[in-house]
Amino acid sequence: MLTPNMNYSHLKSSYLFYNIAKKTREYLAQHPDTHLYRMGIGDVSLPLCDAVIKGLHKAADDQADAATFNGYMPECGAPFLRSAVAGYYRGRGVEVDDEEVFISSGASDELGDILDLFDRSNRSLIIEPAYPAYVDANVMGGREIIHLPSSRDNGFLPLPDDDTDAELIYICSPNNPTGAVYSREQLKVWVDWANAHNSVIIFDGAYEAFIEDETIPHSIFEIEGARTCAIEICSLSKTAGFTGTRLGYTVIPKELVRCGMNFNEMWVRNRTTKTNGVSYIIQRAACEVFTEEGQRQIKENIQVYKKNARTLMNALDKLGIWYTGGKNAPYIWLECPDKMGSWEFFDKLLNEAQIIGTPGAGFGKCGEGYLRFSTFGSPEDTEEAARRLLELLDK
Amino acid sequence: MLTPNMNYSHLKSSYLFYNIAKKTREYLAQHPDTHLYRMGIGDVSLPLCDAVIKGLHKAADDQADAATFNGYMPECGAPFLRSAVAGYYRGRGVEVDDEEVFISSGASDELGDILDLFDRSNRSLIIEPAYPAYVDANVMGGREIIHLPSSRDNGFLPLPDDDTDAELIYICSPNNPTGAVYSREQLKVWVDWANAHNSVIIFDGAYEAFIEDETIPHSIFEIEGARTCAIEICSLSKTAGFTGTRLGYTVIPKELVRCGMNFNEMWVRNRTTKTNGVSYIIQRAACEVFTEEGQRQIKENIQVYKKNARTLMNALDKLGIWYTGGKNAPYIWLECPDKMGSWEFFDKLLNEAQIIGTPGAGFGKCGEGYLRFSTFGSPEDTEEAARRLLELLDK
Repeated sequence: MLTPNMNYSHLKSSYLFYNIAKKTREYLAQHPDTHLYRMGIGDVSLPLCDAVIKGLHKAADDQADAATFNGYMPECGAPFLRSAVAGYYRGRGVEVDDEEVFISSGASDELGDILDLFDRSNRSLIIEPAYPAYVDANVMGGREIIHLPSSRDNGFLPLPDDDTDAELIYICSPNNPTGAVYSREQLKVWVDWANAHNSVIIFDGAYEAFIEDETIPHSIFEIEGARTCAIEICSLSKTAGFTGTRLGYTVIPKELVRCGMNFNEMWVRNRTTKTNGVSYIIQRAACEVFTEEGQRQIKENIQVYKKNARTLMNALDKLGIWYTGGKNAPYIWLECPDKMGSWEFFDKLLNEAQIIGTPGAGFGKCGEGYLRFSTFGSPEDTEEAARRLLELLDK
Repeated sequence: MLTPNMNYSHLKSSYLFYNIAKKTREYLAQHPDTHLYRMGIGDVSLPLCDAVIKGLHKAADDQADAATFNGYMPECGAPFLRSAVAGYYRGRGVEVDDEEVFISSGASDELGDILDLFDRSNRSLIIEPAYPAYVDANVMGGREIIHLPSSRDNGFLPLPDDDTDAELIYICSPNNPTGAVYSREQLKVWVDWANAHNSVIIFDGAYEAFIEDETIPHSIFEIEGARTCAIEICSLSKTAGFTGTRLGYTVIPKELVRCGMNFNEMWVRNRTTKTNGVSYIIQRAACEVFTEEGQRQIKENIQVYKKNARTLMNALDKLGIWYTGGKNAPYIWLECPDKMGSWEFFDKLLNEAQIIGTPGAGFGKCGEGYLRFSTFGSPEDTEEAARRLLELLDK
C-alpha cells in the first residue's frame, strides 16, 4: 500500500498573495479603470540588458547549426559560466574554485533541492519574518522548524544566543522581506556559532547586488571561517532581471564536511543523478552578466530601482515612519503608522491611495504591524505612490 | 550536531561512462588522428529545428522590451505551453486537462524531483537493465529498491507476477537502454496490477516520438485505468533535440489519489514552493514544437535517426545477431556475438573497428552479454560503423 509524503498535510495554506490578489480584484471591480500603484510585487519590471539579449540571440544561433550545437550540458554547470562566477567572487576578494560553483535554474529551485543533502532529523532555524518557501520546503521534508522572531529592537537582525539550537540556519542578507543587512561583525558571530555547533548556514544572497554600503559583505565567504560551515545560494533574478529567464548559482566549499561526508562531492552526485544541467542558451546569456559591459548595464538597471527606493524612503522620512531596508536592498520594511495592523494598513493604502503593499503579517507572526514595499515598479508609479503616501499620511 | 543525508554513502559509483571515456582516451593516445564511430552516446547530433530557433529569437526579443518582458512565470508552466501539450495528447485521443500538465526542465530533473511526493517507506520496483539514475535517486531517498531483471526470454519486457510487490513502479517504454516497447495489452497488465495493489506507476515516456508501430501506445494514459495509478514524465530532449536546451512535461491526473492525498494538488504545492517555473524563453520556443510546422520539422529530424537505426539493424540482421529496439526506439540492444561479455565486445569493437558502443552490463547485472547502440550519430558515421561491423563479424 503506497504512502504519500504525509508531511504535505502539515503545510499551512498561505493566503498572503491570494488575499492580496482577491482584495485587488474586488477593488478594481468596484472602481474600474482605476490605476493601481503596485508596490507589493517582488518582480522586476525592466527588460534584460542589451548584453544578455545579444547573448541569447547568439546562443540561439549556436543551436541552429550542427557545428556549434550543444547537447547535454555538464550537470553542475557549463565550465565557462562556473569560471565567470568564480571570477566575479575573485573580483570582490573571495577565492572560490570553479568546481565550488554550481549553476542552477534559480535560487528558489536550489533552496528546495539543497535540502536533499541533509538528514530529516536536522532542525532548521528560520529567522522571521521570512520568505514563506523556507518554511514550506522544510515542512515537506518533515524537518522540525525553529522560528527565531526578529523585531525593530534588533533591527530585524537577530544573533544567536545561549538558547539557539539548530543544525541548519537560514540567513538571507540583504533580507527578503525586511531589507535588513547583516554587518561583517554580525555575520562573523553567526559563522563562529555555526562552526562551534557543527551547524550549516544556508546563506541566501539573492539580493547582494543591491548593497551599496562598502562595509557590508556581499557573500558569507567574505567572513573568515565560512568555508567550513556555509552554502551560499545566489540568483540573477534581481541582479540582472532574470526572474522569468531563470539562472542562479550556488557555492559549496570543498572544506564543508560533516560526519565524513563532503557536501561538495554529494552535490556533484546529486546533480549528475537528478538533472542534466541548465539550458545552454540561458547559461551562455548569463555569462554576459559577468562581462565588463554586462556589469555596467545591469548596474544601470539596479540604479533605477535604487532611485525608486530613495523616492519612497524620502517620503517615509518626511512622514517620520520607521523603516529598514531600501539602502542596501530592493525592499523597504516599514512600521504601519498609528499602530495599525498589517492588513488594516494594506486596506487603507488600497482604498485611499490606490497603493498596493505587502502586509508584513504574511511573512510570519512577528511581521504583524509592518508592511513591505518593493522598489521594482516603474519610476513614474513609484513617484506617484510616494506623493500619495505623503498626501494620505501627512498630518 | 548536523547529520548529512547518509543515504549518499550507500550510492555505488557507476564506472560505466567513466570507463568508456577512459578506454576511449587511452585508445586515442595510442592511435592519434584515428576517427572513432561513436554509437555509444545517447545525445542528439542534429541542431534544433527552424521553428524552435525562430521561437527562441522571438522570445529573446520579448525579453528586450518592457512592453513584452516576462518576469516570474507560473510555477507549474506557462498556460500557453500547458495547453499546447494537452492539445498534443488530445491529438492522440488522450484527454488531459491543461492543469494536469506540468512543465519541467526535463525528464531527468523531474524523475528526481517527483519522489518528494512519496514517503520513504515505499519500495521502488526498477525493471533492469535500467537508466542508472532511477536507482541512484531512490538510494538517495533511502528507499528500498526491488530489482526486476528482464532478459531475451521475455523480450526485456517483464510483467508482474505473484511475487511482484512494490509501491512505486518505474516503466520506461520505449526503453532506455533496450529499446523494447510494451504493447497495449502488456501495459494494461501493469495498470491493472497497480490499481489492484494501490501502487503508482512512474511512466518515463521520453522516447515516445520514436514509435512507428501504430498499435504501440505513446502514453500510459492510452490505457484504461491509468488515470488512477500513473504519473507520466516526458521530455523534448530526444523528440526535438532539447538535450542541451532543456524542457520536459509531466502529466499527473486529478484522479490520482492515495490515502486521501491528491498528487496533482501536492505537485502544485511542490512546484510553487520549490521552483519559480521554467524559463519563459525556453517555454515559448518549446511551444513551437507543438505547432503543425514544428511537428513536421521535428519528424524530419527523427527520420534521420530512424534511418540510422535501419542501417544498423540491416547489418545486425545480415550478421544474424539478436537485438531488440531500433524500430520504435532510438536505441538498439544487441546480444554480443560468440557469447562475449559486454566489456569484451566493447573492447573488440573499439580496437578492431574503432566503434564505440555502451556495454549493457553498465545498466544492471542482467545487461551482461549485451551492448547498446545509439542511433543519434551522423548518418555518415553510422553507415561506416555498419560497414565495419559487417567486415569485423561476418564469418
